[in-house]
Amino acid sequence: MIVNDYFSMKLLDEQLHFIDQTKLPIKEEYIRTDSYERIAVAIERLEIRGAPAIGVAAAYALALSTKNNFSENIFFTAYHRLISTRPTAVNLSWALNEIRNCFEQNRNSEKVYDLLIAKAVEINNSEFQACENIGENGLAIFMKKSKVLTHCNTGRLATAGEGTAFNVIKKGFNKNLVSFVYADETRPLFQGSRLTAFELEKNNIPYKVITDSTAAHLMKLGEIDLVITGADRIAANGDSANKIGTYNLAVLCSFHKIPFFIAAPFSTIDKKISSGNEIIIELRKSEELSMINRIELTSSKYEFLNYAFDVTPSELITGIITDEKIFSFPYNFNE
Amino acid sequence: MIVNDYFSMKLLDEQLHFIDQTKLPIKEEYIRTDSYERIAVAIERLEIRGAPAIGVAAAYALALSTKNNFSENIFFTAYHRLISTRPTAVNLSWALNEIRNCFEQNRNSEKVYDLLIAKAVEINNSEFQACENIGENGLAIFMKKSKVLTHCNTGRLATAGEGTAFNVIKKGFNKNLVSFVYADETRPLFQGSRLTAFELEKNNIPYKVITDSTAAHLMKLGEIDLVITGADRIAANGDSANKIGTYNLAVLCSFHKIPFFIAAPFSTIDKKISSGNEIIIELRKSEELSMINRIELTSSKYEFLNYAFDVTPSELITGIITDEKIFSFPYNFNE
Repeated sequence: MIVNDYFSMKLLDEQLHFIDQTKLPIKEEYIRTDSYERIAVAIERLEIRGAPAIGVAAAYALALSTKNNFSENIFFTAYHRLISTRPTAVNLSWALNEIRNCFEQNRNSEKVYDLLIAKAVEINNSEFQACENIGENGLAIFMKKSKVLTHCNTGRLATAGEGTAFNVIKKGFNKNLVSFVYADETRPLFQGSRLTAFELEKNNIPYKVITDSTAAHLMKLGEIDLVITGADRIAANGDSANKIGTYNLAVLCSFHKIPFFIAAPFSTIDKKISSGNEIIIELRKSEELSMINRIELTSSKYEFLNYAFDVTPSELITGIITDEKIFSFPYNFNE
Repeated sequence: MIVNDYFSMKLLDEQLHFIDQTKLPIKEEYIRTDSYERIAVAIERLEIRGAPAIGVAAAYALALSTKNNFSENIFFTAYHRLISTRPTAVNLSWALNEIRNCFEQNRNSEKVYDLLIAKAVEINNSEFQACENIGENGLAIFMKKSKVLTHCNTGRLATAGEGTAFNVIKKGFNKNLVSFVYADETRPLFQGSRLTAFELEKNNIPYKVITDSTAAHLMKLGEIDLVITGADRIAANGDSANKIGTYNLAVLCSFHKIPFFIAAPFSTIDKKISSGNEIIIELRKSEELSMINRIELTSSKYEFLNYAFDVTPSELITGIITDEKIFSFPYNFNE
């Protein structure tokens, strides 16, 4: 199998090219656009997803809003449109505010578009480098050749680099420190069985996909040495919001005395919020539970509650692997 | 909404009529047959499912094998065919052995078919009564008006009566002891979002369906007062095999200090096995994870591990509600 034959997004000929993640792995289709609105829709539809990838895509989108017929009004309309696409990922507002600051410093320049694009490329490159550093820093968590469980998707598709938790696993595998990966299928959108399995296949890493409620059984069997997931937002005390089911895994790890790690760029840490209690948890549509591929799986008239994220309290997190270093409990990100 | 307008199975005009549970809730279709092979296939395909329902259906099937051209050879072929359909449910082998004993006592009688049918009806009636007693006995677990979480499906569809865990919830609701039900969708076959939601709707019980990994988040929010599930096989020490994800819930309950109950007919207790370590866990097809309604959800070439059940150690079970009484840890079913 060929490695490196896919990408999450790329700026080419003044257009953003991105893979439509809702169609993976059945179809590998790329979309190209210079419309910020199209990119906003892509983020809402989860064609582009993963907290770090969302941030970079939004930065490109906001920069592209100044490409033609540039005006302050269009720019701020685009800013507000993009920031409202997903509530949980801190990278989104962080990246948009970087572009906005750049805009405010250069609003009178003729080259504002070029400057904003350069800023977006800079964000992209620094996110790529953050993934590399996370992967390298993460190698320290492996005490032996390990069987690892992960949740959702945190690889190249979810980031502007080689991934967060996924890159720790990938570099661990390449260093002979990871022997096997269990991938939670990750309901309701199957990012595990669709996207993580796709990336594990591309990297020739041995794995099996399991349902989200199988992890406890495997832990009891001694099949899991450690768990690593990503994060969408980390509070100043280390409480971490991530895909629904992450807190579940952290509780299971605590019970089975298995280390539980978060891997995320330092930019995921939101020092403005003191604890996870302040994190707004996105509720998504019932249809994600009642329909699959637009076909009714059960009656869409039934009642559903579709939390997209949960918050893992910091005391259940063995370590938070960032591009700067690995932090551990009690968390102090200023040190 | 009309209550009581559906049934799991019924013997009528010397044929077994049963609802095809794989089509619910989109279609309410009944199948009628007097072929033991067709019933064996129905159990394998999960058209008939739920440990108590499987036992009763298999009893009818084995009795029906003597309807035409009766011979010892056909009878024992049918017995072995039926007993191999599902490995985990103890009710299956228990019910088949009841019919077999009846056969061995009456093999020279002209009326063997009538006697076996009468025995199957007797098993059906006693399973119906067991559900009633479980429901009544279970009322004692409610310390206040409660929000209850359940997993998989344990209602009329899964049994030959009004259900096990579901009947405790239903009787609790009717006595104003249950205010709300959270139903795990229950991957991979969605018995929660398809079947339990169907039965909750039929009974006008307020509920919401959640993904299986949402329970931990709701427990942290204080939204769940207790958890009740069924069981497919219970060892002499109380270790209980049930739908994959049940052990997960028991661990979450232990962590959040929430009571965790099993409800099952006394016939589910297999005194021949001393602990859960002796229970063989059924592995089912990968397609249950890669396909939905025969459509590829992800690549069916990917790797999957599909455990159908897990075992919850008895020390995590607050009480086992049976038709005889509620047992509690340390479990001694001979008392």
